Amino acid sequence: MSFIHVTEIAESTPTKIVLLVADGLGGLAHPETGLSELETARLPNLNALAAKSVLGLTVPVHAGVTPGSGPGHLSLFGYDPLEYPIKRGIMEALGVGIPVRAGEIAARGNFCTVDGHGVVADRRAGRLPSEQSEPLCALLNKITVSGAEVAVHPVKDHRFVAVFHGEGLSDEVTETDPGKVGVAPVAVRATAAAGEKMARIANEFAAKAKQALAGRSPANMVLVRGFSGAPTVPSMMERFKLKPAAIASYPMYRGLAQIVGMDVLRTGNTMDAEIETLREQWGKYDFFFVHYKHADAAGEDGDFPKKVRVLEEFDSYLPKVLALKPDVLMVAGDHSTPAVMGGHSWHPVPFLLHARLAGADGVAGFNERTCARGSLGRFPAKDSLMLAMACALKLVKYGA
Amino acid sequence: MSFIHVTEIAESTPTKIVLLVADGLGGLAHPETGLSELETARLPNLNALAAKSVLGLTVPVHAGVTPGSGPGHLSLFGYDPLEYPIKRGIMEALGVGIPVRAGEIAARGNFCTVDGHGVVADRRAGRLPSEQSEPLCALLNKITVSGAEVAVHPVKDHRFVAVFHGEGLSDEVTETDPGKVGVAPVAVRATAAAGEKMARIANEFAAKAKQALAGRSPANMVLVRGFSGAPTVPSMMERFKLKPAAIASYPMYRGLAQIVGMDVLRTGNTMDAEIETLREQWGKYDFFFVHYKHADAAGEDGDFPKKVRVLEEFDSYLPKVLALKPDVLMVAGDHSTPAVMGGHSWHPVPFLLHARLAGADGVAGFNERTCARGSLGRFPAKDSLMLAMACALKLVKYGA
Repeated sequence: MSFIHVTEIAESTPTKIVLLVADGLGGLAHPETGLSELETARLPNLNALAAKSVLGLTVPVHAGVTPGSGPGHLSLFGYDPLEYPIKRGIMEALGVGIPVRAGEIAARGNFCTVDGHGVVADRRAGRLPSEQSEPLCALLNKITVSGAEVAVHPVKDHRFVAVFHGEGLSDEVTETDPGKVGVAPVAVRATAAAGEKMARIANEFAAKAKQALAGRSPANMVLVRGFSGAPTVPSMMERFKLKPAAIASYPMYRGLAQIVGMDVLRTGNTMDAEIETLREQWGKYDFFFVHYKHADAAGEDGDFPKKVRVLEEFDSYLPKVLALKPDVLMVAGDHSTPAVMGGHSWHPVPFLLHARLAGADGVAGFNERTCARGSLGRFPAKDSLMLAMACALKLVKYGA
Repeated sequence: MSFIHVTEIAESTPTKIVLLVADGLGGLAHPETGLSELETARLPNLNALAAKSVLGLTVPVHAGVTPGSGPGHLSLFGYDPLEYPIKRGIMEALGVGIPVRAGEIAARGNFCTVDGHGVVADRRAGRLPSEQSEPLCALLNKITVSGAEVAVHPVKDHRFVAVFHGEGLSDEVTETDPGKVGVAPVAVRATAAAGEKMARIANEFAAKAKQALAGRSPANMVLVRGFSGAPTVPSMMERFKLKPAAIASYPMYRGLAQIVGMDVLRTGNTMDAEIETLREQWGKYDFFFVHYKHADAAGEDGDFPKKVRVLEEFDSYLPKVLALKPDVLMVAGDHSTPAVMGGHSWHPVPFLLHARLAGADGVAGFNERTCARGSLGRFPAKDSLMLAMACALKLVKYGA
C-alpha cells in the first residue's frame, strides 16, 4: 500500500502496540533431533500465548532473499526495504552509533597493506586488531580535505567509518577498493555529475591517508567503499501517524529506529533494563519497538544449545510485557539465523499477533512449523504493522 | 496482472461463472463460545460443498485495511481497488440508485444548523429525519446555478446527494464542510485549474441553499463534500471478455456492477426473486454476480444470532444455484462484518471455489478457520476472478 493510501486512513489513537523483536528468531532443525531451536526450547509463555493469537511466517524482503539487519528491521517498521535501501556506509556508521545527517556522506573503510609498488597485498592488513587500528583512526582524523570536513571513527579490527560533511556532497561515486589483491587501489570516480566533488575529496582523503600511514606495518593504506548519503525515509509519524519509541541497547538498532523517526529511549544493556524502560515510558508513546539481540548472536556463532537457551530467556520476559496490557503485541524476528547455518538466512520468520480483535488460530506452540499453519500464512513482513494498526483500531475504513 | 496481460489471454467461451456474494460474510468468535458466526451456523449445503472445493481467505484491499462496499466489490469483480478508487459522492449517488455519467459531478450533502452569525452549530441538523429532509430536498431542487444544472436527491435522514451536470465540470475542488462545529462553512476552492468552474458553482449552490432554507429550524444550511466525477473503469467485457450480469436488489450494489459494465438485471427484493432471475437469464450471460445483503446488515447491527440465522438462510439457497450447474461457483464476501465489532473489518474473508477443474482440499466446513487451512491460502480478492476464469477455461496459455 502506498504512502498516500496509508496516510489517508491512519488515525492517531491512544491504543498501544508493542513490537517485540527477537533478532534472528527463526531457525532450522538440528540434524540429530529434527527439531529447530524454537522447537527444542521450553517456551511456556510463548506457546500459551500462541494458542490465543494469530500466527504466520513473515518474509522480510522477498522469497529467497537473506536480509541484513537494515532491511529486516525496516520491513517490521512497515516499510518496503526494496523501496528504502540503506547503504553500507550508513549501516557501518549506525553500528557504532554515529548519526549521518542529511547532506553528509558516510563510507566504510578498511586498513590494508600495500607493497612498495602501491599494489594491495592484504585487503584487511591481517585483520588488524582494534587496539592497533584505533590509534591509526586518530591519525586519520587529523586529515584535512579541501571543501569538506572528514571524521574517522573506529569500528572493529581493520574497519572504520569516515563521515564527510560539507556543501554539495553526493554518494554517486565509485570506491577505492579493487576487491582483490595484486592490483593498486582504484581512484574514486563520479557516477553522475553530482558526485564530482565527493570523488575529488575521496581521492584527496585516500592520498593523505597513504602519507599519514607511510612506513607503518602492516597497515600502510586504506580502502574506502560504500559511500552513502543519509536515507530519506518518511517518519512513522508522517506515514502511520504513530508516536513511536525504540528500546534497544545495540547502536545499530537504535540507529535504524532513528531513521524512521522513532524516539530512541535511553536504556541499559540487558533485557531487564529494556523492559524497565518500557514500563517507565509506557504512557508517552503508542508504538514500542523492543529489541532482543541474543538469539541472532547465538545463531551467528553456530551455537545451537546457546540459541535454545537465549530463546528460553526471551520467553521468560513475555509475562512482564503482557502485564502492561498492550492493545496489540507482535512477537517477530527481523530474519532467521539458523544455528546450523551460522548466519542470517532467507527462511521466513515465525510471527505472532495477539490482540482482542485479532482472532485466534488455536494452534498451541510458537515455532516455524506451528506458524506455517497459522491463518496469516506466509506474508510480507512490511504488512505486519498494518495488521497491528488495524487491531489497535488505528486505521479507518478505505472507501465508502 | 495488468489490464493488457489479462486481455491478451482472456477468451470468450460459453462456460458460466457464478459469483455468490454474501455481503459482510466473515466474522469473529463470540466471546462466550469461541465460535464465529459461520462456525455457529448450521450450513449443511456450504459445508458439504466445501469438502469438494478449494478454500481460502480473500484480502479485499490490503492487509489491515477495512474496505467500504465499493472497494470490497471491485476486488471481487477482478479490479485492484487501489487502482480504481470510487469516491464518496459517487457511492452516495449509487446508494440511492442515481447514475453518475461521464462529465457529471456528484457530491454528498448534509443539512446542518448554523447560528445567527453563520457558524455551524450542528453538522447534521439533529440528524433530521427523512420525512423532514425530503421536502427540503424538493426546495433545493428548485435552485438554479449559472452554467450547469443541479439535481438534489434525498438519501436518508440529514443526508442528500447533489448531481451537477454541465460543460467543463471537474471534481478537483475542496468541500464546504469544516468538519467541526463552531466555525462557518468553508468556501469551495479549486485544487487545480480544471476545478474552477465547479468551485464557483458549488459556492453559488451553497449560497442559494442558505437563502432557500433561511429562517427554518433546525435545518437552515447545507454542507457539501466528496465532489466526485464518474470513475473510469474498463468494463469486464473490455478487460476480461466476459458478458456479465448483476442480480442485486440494493441500489448501491447495482450501481457498483454498472461501473464495471455489468448488465443490471431487473429483480425482486428477496433472495428467492434473485435466484429466480438467475434461472430466467441463465442462457444470456457467462458471468453472474448475485448479491445477498443480510449478513452484512446483521453484522452491522451487532446481532450475532441474527447473523447466524441469515447465514443459515443463505446456505439454504445454495442447492438452487447448484441445480443450474454453473461451470464455476464462487462463494465470497466483499469484506468481513463481525457481529462483535458491529461494522466492517479488515479480517480476510472466507472464500470457496467450486469447479470440475478447481481441485478439492477435502476440508469439510466453510468458515474462517477451515478456509485458513485451504489450499488457496490468504490471497488478494482481485485474483479470485482470474482463478474462476481459469477453471471456466476462459484464459489461454501465457507465453509459448
